[in-house]
Amino acid sequence: MQTFSLAPYQQEFDALLVSDTHHKRYLSGFTGSGGYLLLTPSGSELLVAGKYWQQVAEQSPQCQRFCTDQDGWLNVLQQRLDVHSIERLGFEAHALSYQQVMQLTQALSQQLVATDHVVTPSRRWKSAPEIALIRKACEITEAAIEQGLAHFRFGMSERELAAHLEFYARMLGAESIDFLIVVSGERGALPHGRPSERIIGRNELVTIDFGVVYQGYHSDVTRTFCTGEVAPQLQQLFDAVYCAQKLGVEMLAPGIAANRVDHTVREYLGSLGYGEAFCHGLGHGVGLQGHEYPLLTPDSLATLEVGMVVTVEPGVYLSGLGGARVEDTLVITPSGCESLTKLPRQLRNIFEVADMVKNRQE
Amino acid sequence: MQTFSLAPYQQEFDALLVSDTHHKRYLSGFTGSGGYLLLTPSGSELLVAGKYWQQVAEQSPQCQRFCTDQDGWLNVLQQRLDVHSIERLGFEAHALSYQQVMQLTQALSQQLVATDHVVTPSRRWKSAPEIALIRKACEITEAAIEQGLAHFRFGMSERELAAHLEFYARMLGAESIDFLIVVSGERGALPHGRPSERIIGRNELVTIDFGVVYQGYHSDVTRTFCTGEVAPQLQQLFDAVYCAQKLGVEMLAPGIAANRVDHTVREYLGSLGYGEAFCHGLGHGVGLQGHEYPLLTPDSLATLEVGMVVTVEPGVYLSGLGGARVEDTLVITPSGCESLTKLPRQLRNIFEVADMVKNRQE
Ligand SMILES: [Mn+2]
Ligand SMILES: [Mn+2]
Repeated sequence: MQTFSLAPYQQEFDALLVSDTHHKRYLSGFTGSGGYLLLTPSGSELLVAGKYWQQVAEQSPQCQRFCTDQDGWLNVLQQRLDVHSIERLGFEAHALSYQQVMQLTQALSQQLVATDHVVTPSRRWKSAPEIALIRKACEITEAAIEQGLAHFRFGMSERELAAHLEFYARMLGAESIDFLIVVSGERGALPHGRPSERIIGRNELVTIDFGVVYQGYHSDVTRTFCTGEVAPQLQQLFDAVYCAQKLGVEMLAPGIAANRVDHTVREYLGSLGYGEAFCHGLGHGVGLQGHEYPLLTPDSLATLEVGMVVTVEPGVYLSGLGGARVEDTLVITPSGCESLTKLPRQLRNIFEVADMVKNRQE
Repeated sequence: MQTFSLAPYQQEFDALLVSDTHHKRYLSGFTGSGGYLLLTPSGSELLVAGKYWQQVAEQSPQCQRFCTDQDGWLNVLQQRLDVHSIERLGFEAHALSYQQVMQLTQALSQQLVATDHVVTPSRRWKSAPEIALIRKACEITEAAIEQGLAHFRFGMSERELAAHLEFYARMLGAESIDFLIVVSGERGALPHGRPSERIIGRNELVTIDFGVVYQGYHSDVTRTFCTGEVAPQLQQLFDAVYCAQKLGVEMLAPGIAANRVDHTVREYLGSLGYGEAFCHGLGHGVGLQGHEYPLLTPDSLATLEVGMVVTVEPGVYLSGLGGARVEDTLVITPSGCESLTKLPRQLRNIFEVADMVKNRQE
């Protein structure tokens, strides 16, 4: 729950209708997928269906609540706008369909003002409680990776290994699975490959990219493992990714341009002959969404600031051969950064991880 | 992949821009979340980012494909509209944000026409291949429920039991988990309760409502179990739900009004004193979405037709006491209906299910 002021926007609109689910949650604490948050100069109001009535009282005690079951939400909105003498109502142009805006236009007597990025900018700095939740999401994810890997045996498909990782994430308290990439062997060349029926073989690289949600906040971590000694070409590829990731992380600090970090890592991989093979951005912000502002990409205009949480995730992908990626989720601190993901980054054999997990449990 | 004709709409628009992900998949076979499908009088075209290039060739061989990486998708769209001499471009008003429509308006020289429910109606009848996929999704879901329940032991929370069910759904081939409700004891009174930290106790009802996705198609099944003999009040409540569900299923047939089925079941539960306690609609369509047309609700205007796939899911919820629900996913046939969900509907003890699963495996 964050404070938010309409004052900077008084030239544009008098009240703001918040429909973006993440913004609603960020500003009110209310986690329901339905309902609308109305920000007026005199406070915040939640317009919700009756089924959310109790939930609003618990999650958003600072908001006035209005039930829309009886009169329909457009009529309730009209009433609230009239009570506050609102003349110009801002709405989030990215978070209402064209159809919804047409309905608003027909129903309301107020002037409607399309807005863009009113709430988003304030979400880029994470507060201490927000960082604690991202940290917890990362802890769950990393423990689930290790505990899931402990079940690996030859003959297992990528999809079956993925099922074990998801199981432990749930057992450890993940409220949902954001995504899970498990690619092995030549499928390692797919940066966003979904776990497939491919049977994971011997002496292969296995890239695992896993994100879960804990109390609304996301994690994002990638590690590349092996199932035995890999070909020198793959070892070389991994080493390049490992060093590139370390280079990127070491650059993170307040005041650094996001595109400079991307550029430096890209140049480094280019100097090793992997320029073309690094075919995506270096990183992205993490918070209530798995991918959010700021981007660490060649054309990003962002500058890193204390409290931002970002990923650094270079990868190298060679079609027909395979690939590797290493990714941390990190928070920018006054002196540089702290990684919220802690698993060892070097190339580890899955069976060594499994032994370690079993020893820990004894 | 379904055939679709623009002919009925020639008074309104000359080409249709399909942005709804489900509609895109339904009409082209393309499963990517990005990209746009353009339907013109001379055929279908997919405008996609380069990363989808290969995927479009494999999934949508009947569509021409155009890469938007170089020129940006708005320019590519303009070029394609010019090639086809399109003057009026229909768009899906529910599936583009206000912001996106403003961008289209600025970028294109064509007249834009907001449309509503152009593709949706044809999705209500499921073809044989579609029914086969829903059937498979239901099979996975039901097997996962039984195999997951085999791991139940006292001391387990709803969330932990849910993790086991999701694990088996994944192992059995679910491409994703749509939703999973596990509520026990007094939490059974929450129709849409998420699995919580509540420890499942003895002699309780446990309601499990589970939906997964298989090749894009959804399942939806609810069964209520028990962990020992339950109080007479709960047994009575369950029996009412069981009979109500059977009553609803027996009414399903082509030509029957959806709201009549809802009404009949509602009257029946009302006659037993559970009128207020059945606080949601009786059912909904199932297909590429977990909830779609037609609804079986008091104010539904739909009439059942051969090939529709719908749920029948009455429930009774008594705050402070608990609740129960029984739900099948069924396809309407010329002579009535066939249930795609087959698990026994009567109240079964979780431990009896577990024994049965273990015996089967031996
Ligand atoms: Mn990432
Ligand atoms: Mn349902």
